[in-house]
Parts: sequence; structure tokens; C-alpha cells
Amino acid sequence: MKRIALISTGGTIEKTYDELSGVLANNISVLDVMLASLELRGIAITRVQLMNKDSLDMSPADHTLIAETAIRMASDYAGVVVVHGTDRLAVSGHRIVELAPTPKSPIVFTGAMRPYALRSTDALQNLTEALLAVQLLSPGVYVAMHNQVLQFPGVTKDKGLGTFVKEPA
Amino acid sequence: MKRIALISTGGTIEKTYDELSGVLANNISVLDVMLASLELRGIAITRVQLMNKDSLDMSPADHTLIAETAIRMASDYAGVVVVHGTDRLAVSGHRIVELAPTPKSPIVFTGAMRPYALRSTDALQNLTEALLAVQLLSPGVYVAMHNQVLQFPGVTKDKGLGTFVKEPA
Amino acid sequence: MKRIALISTGGTIEKTYDELSGVLANNISVLDVMLASLELRGIAITRVQLMNKDSLDMSPADHTLIAETAIRMASDYAGVVVVHGTDRLAVSGHRIVELAPTPKSPIVFTGAMRPYALRSTDALQNLTEALLAVQLLSPGVYVAMHNQVLQFPGVTKDKGLGTFVKEPA
Amino acid sequence: MKRIALISTGGTIEKTYDELSGVLANNISVLDVMLASLELRGIAITRVQLMNKDSLDMSPADHTLIAETAIRMASDYAGVVVVHGTDRLAVSGHRIVELAPTPKSPIVFTGAMRPYALRSTDALQNLTEALLAVQLLSPGVYVAMHNQVLQFPGVTKDKGLGTFVKEPA
Repeated sequence: MKRIALISTGGTIEKTYDELSGVLANNISVLDVMLASLELRGIAITRVQLMNKDSLDMSPADHTLIAETAIRMASDYAGVVVVHGTDRLAVSGHRIVELAPTPKSPIVFTGAMRPYALRSTDALQNLTEALLAVQLLSPGVYVAMHNQVLQFPGVTKDKGLGTFVKEPA
Repeated sequence: MKRIALISTGGTIEKTYDELSGVLANNISVLDVMLASLELRGIAITRVQLMNKDSLDMSPADHTLIAETAIRMASDYAGVVVVHGTDRLAVSGHRIVELAPTPKSPIVFTGAMRPYALRSTDALQNLTEALLAVQLLSPGVYVAMHNQVLQFPGVTKDKGLGTFVKEPA
Repeated sequence: MKRIALISTGGTIEKTYDELSGVLANNISVLDVMLASLELRGIAITRVQLMNKDSLDMSPADHTLIAETAIRMASDYAGVVVVHGTDRLAVSGHRIVELAPTPKSPIVFTGAMRPYALRSTDALQNLTEALLAVQLLSPGVYVAMHNQVLQFPGVTKDKGLGTFVKEPA
Repeated sequence: MKRIALISTGGTIEKTYDELSGVLANNISVLDVMLASLELRGIAITRVQLMNKDSLDMSPADHTLIAETAIRMASDYAGVVVVHGTDRLAVSGHRIVELAPTPKSPIVFTGAMRPYALRSTDALQNLTEALLAVQLLSPGVYVAMHNQVLQFPGVTKDKGLGTFVKEPA
């Protein structure tokens, strides 16, 4: 049984709909609902709810806190998954690479372009991929999303494509 | 085979999610998707896409246009269903009562508190109810939503309850 | 607040999937899950789990028990909804008409061609319709399904069409 | 862009519901619907519909055909995913190991305990995992399911657990 840490920070993946205002907000964690809908054999997950922010609202201190928490847990667990808003996901990813170029176990970021609350969500796909990739990859920092695993550094969000891409070297 | 007119005007029920801005907007009609997911025996539906507005953006002329269209189609069809944003739904409903206290066939408004795009939508329930109620009610103006049929005049949205209620006489 | 009795007897609508045998069976009532997914304003439901049978397995005594229970509850409630397997639904419906041509309040049968457990189910649509129709109809015995309300006697399942039809008089 | 071959053979994952008989059967491929619901960046999939059988109905010749097709495509593609009924999945997997202990690229089997047609399906999770694992694994024969990757030989279905396990060596 592999021990995996799952750090949640908020982002689109966890947004829920507020009837009164008609907008999507980061109010309640839906990660537990998503995890309950998956069959997870062979891993034991430790949940860490570090913060619950749209990543556009994250400060440099937030990114550093996320990076330090992930690095620390990578020493204690067989792998770390970080659920993160996609807009500033790469900032947290690169912060880890600066602080710890080679973490003790793989750190895999994921997120979503469309909240779990939507029928057409990509949240379950991406969480599924991150939880599998973290078991198969060698130590390093990655994003897993849309059936693609990309390794930091040099990863950026392509807003036009709505996904992550590797910057040309 | 009963001939039913279905007038769409926009509102939460038809809102879709825009990945780039992260908000829900009235861009594309999803009524056809909803209709395709229901089994509708015994009625033939004529679709009229009159406008596609959040009802908070409707002008008095919009409400009058909706009312006049519904009244006119009530003369030609066995019933009329109007899909409408809930915030100003009662304004259009009362406008019909002013212009035509007794339409030729039942006119049933419906809408949704949570868009069809959401897993937890009430859109399908409400559309199902309106399409059935319009076959069973006597001529008049109504809202069908949340397993409840209320007759105009005297109907108002209770924002706290998130549903329609009958005003005390 | 209208008081409605909801009698469940089993049938396709409540079938669940057994992983081991790979078949759909009447094991667990899913009516509570369906009811929780609807917004029901203005009615108070009393649940009666009378039996849990595929209607093909119902005996004449079963049909009589269903009919007598529905008739008795029609005297105490503003309406009665009966969830029933579609294959023998009409047998129970006609049994009521024999025993009580005019019940005290409307008795509305419903069921499903495709279990709630399936994505493409018609169960939620049909339950929604029965719960609304029972509030709008005059006393009598009906089936509500597929956006259609038919009154007993003279109702039969058309297996080819996969729905209920009215027999020619 | 990685070129991946996707061989379908039938099994629970593709079963659909037959209203008339009330059973789940292997009639129509639903793999295309599943693929359309995923965002697949970075891979190009070639579909091969080899057969459409409940694996309990597979003959030794069927297992050999599946094995030979997978081995041949492993030479031409960056990876091969095989969708297969779980009951005899391990027979096809071991047949590959007998015929080609080291295929040219990874061959990843997957399947489902509950058809895609069910709300509670594990089909999308398992397909997502197989399509990601095939990009990350070294050449060999595997099953990816329930957030777990197991390598042949020595893999067996545990009917009690409802998943695959590694036999003690």
C-alpha cells in the first residue's frame, strides 16, 4: 500500500455554484466527493487542506508555503499530489524546483479548467491521472492533466489551448 | 398529439460555462439537449427562440414582447411553455395577466435556480414539470417549478427560499 | 402543504447492478436517492415500502394488496403515487378500478423503462411527472410517464413503443 | 504527439442496456463516447475494433488473436491499450507474455466492473488510467485499473475484491 499525500489549495476544480449570486466560488471542498467516486486500490491517501484560494489571489508567500509543504511531505510519503488553480499552478511548480530541484518522491500538480460541479468537468479525469502518475514517475516536479504529464521547469499554461504546454528550451 | 409551443428567453437554465473567464453566461441554448434527454410522448413541440437574456437585463419592452408572443401562441396551440430567468419571471407573468386575463390555452412559465450545465441542476425537473402541467391545467397563467404549480397574479420569487411563492392575498 | 403517499413496489426503476453476476436486480431501494435529488416544495411525502418485486413475479394477491393499500391511502392523503414495474403495472391499475371506481383522491402509477442506475434512465422524469400530476388531477386512477398522463381503465403497455398507450374504446 | 493503438474486444465496459429484455449486453461500442468525454492532449489514438465479446465467451483462438494483434501493434505504436472483459483478461495478458515476453512498447489492458452505461461506472476511471499509464511505463504487459498498475505475469482477478491482484510469487 503506497502512502500518498494529497495537498489541496483551491482553484477551479473545487468551485461550487452560489444560487444567490449566480457565480462559481471556492466555498466547499469537493475533493472528498471526487475521491469517493473513484476506486483507489493500493494507495492510502493523507489529505492536507492547506488553503482554499483561486490561484489568481495567491501571494508569493502562498506559493512558498505550498512549495515548502510539498517538499516536506515528499520526504515522508511515496508521492505528493497538489490540487491547484491552473492560472498560477506553474508559479508554485517552479518555486519547488528553485527550493528543491530533486524532491525525495514525485510531486504531481493537477487542476481543472471546468469545475467538478459541471457535467462537462475535466476534474475527475485530471485527479485520476495525477493519482496514477504519482505512482509511476521518478522523483521530480510535474503537472498531470488532459492525459499528459509534463515535467518542471519550463511548464506554462496556454490560455488559448486551455491546457499546459512545455516551453521551447 | 397535443401541439405545445416552447418559447425560450434565456436565464439561468440555459447558462453555460466559459473556461476563459470562469463565469456562467447565456451563450448557447441548451434547451435542445434537455429536450433530447426526455421522452416526450403525446406532444409535438414548436420551439421559438425569442431572446437569450439574463432576465435582470430585460427591458419593459422585452417583457411586453414575451407576453404578447405567449398570448398569441396560446390561441394557436394547446398550451405554451415559457423558459425564463427567475429574477424577472414574475414581471413577464403579470404582464400577460394585464394584457389577457384569460388566454386561450394555459401558459406555463419555468426556469431554474441552477443551470443545466451543473450536476445539481433543477433545470430538467422544472422543464419536465412545465411540459406536463401545460397539458393538465385549464387556461390561465402559471409558474411550474420545484414540484409546485402557482397561478398568476400574486406570484413572486422568494430569493431566500430560492423558489416561487404565492403572495398573501 | 399537500400530503402525498408514495407506495413503492419494486420494478425496473429501482433495479441496481450486481458486479458479481453482471445483472440488474431489485436489491436496494433507490427511491430515496431520487427523491433527494428533486426539489419538492409544497408537498409532504409519506413513504410506504410495500414490496420490492419485479412485477413479472407478482401474484394476484400482490396486485390486490397494492390496490387495497392505494385505495385506503387515497382516503387519508391528498394523493397517492405508486411506483411499479411496468410489465404488470396495468394489472394493478385495473384492480383498483374494479375495487374502487372512484377513489377519494387521485392515484397515479409510474415506473421506468431504464433503471435509475443508468445514465440514460427515464426514472427521474417519470417520478417528477407523477409527483406533479397527482397534485393537478381529479380523483381517479392514472399512469404518468414519458410526459403523458393516461386514465384507467383501458391503459396498456405497448412493448414495441416502450411506453403506455390508451386502448381504442 | 505519441501514437497509441486502442484495441477493443468487448466486455462489461462496453455493455449497454436492452429495454425489452432488461439485461445488459455487448451490442454497441461506447468507447467512442468515452473517448469524446476525455481531453486527450499529446496522444493520437488509432482505434481497432477487434471483436465485441463478453470475455467469458472467448475461445483460445480469440485470446491468441488478441495477443498477436497487440504484439504486432506494439511494434508500430508508442503504446497499446487493450479494452477487455475482466473475467478472462488475465488469459489474454498471459498469452502475450508467452508469445512475446518483451513487446516493443508497453501493452496496457483495462476493463470495468460496472458498465459505462451506469452512473456508478468505473469505466472512465480505468480508461483514463490506461491511456496515461501506457505513456509512462517501460515496455511490458500490464493491467491498469482502480488506480493500480500491475505487471504480467502473475496477475489475476480477485472476484471477491472485484479487482486485479498480483499473485504471490
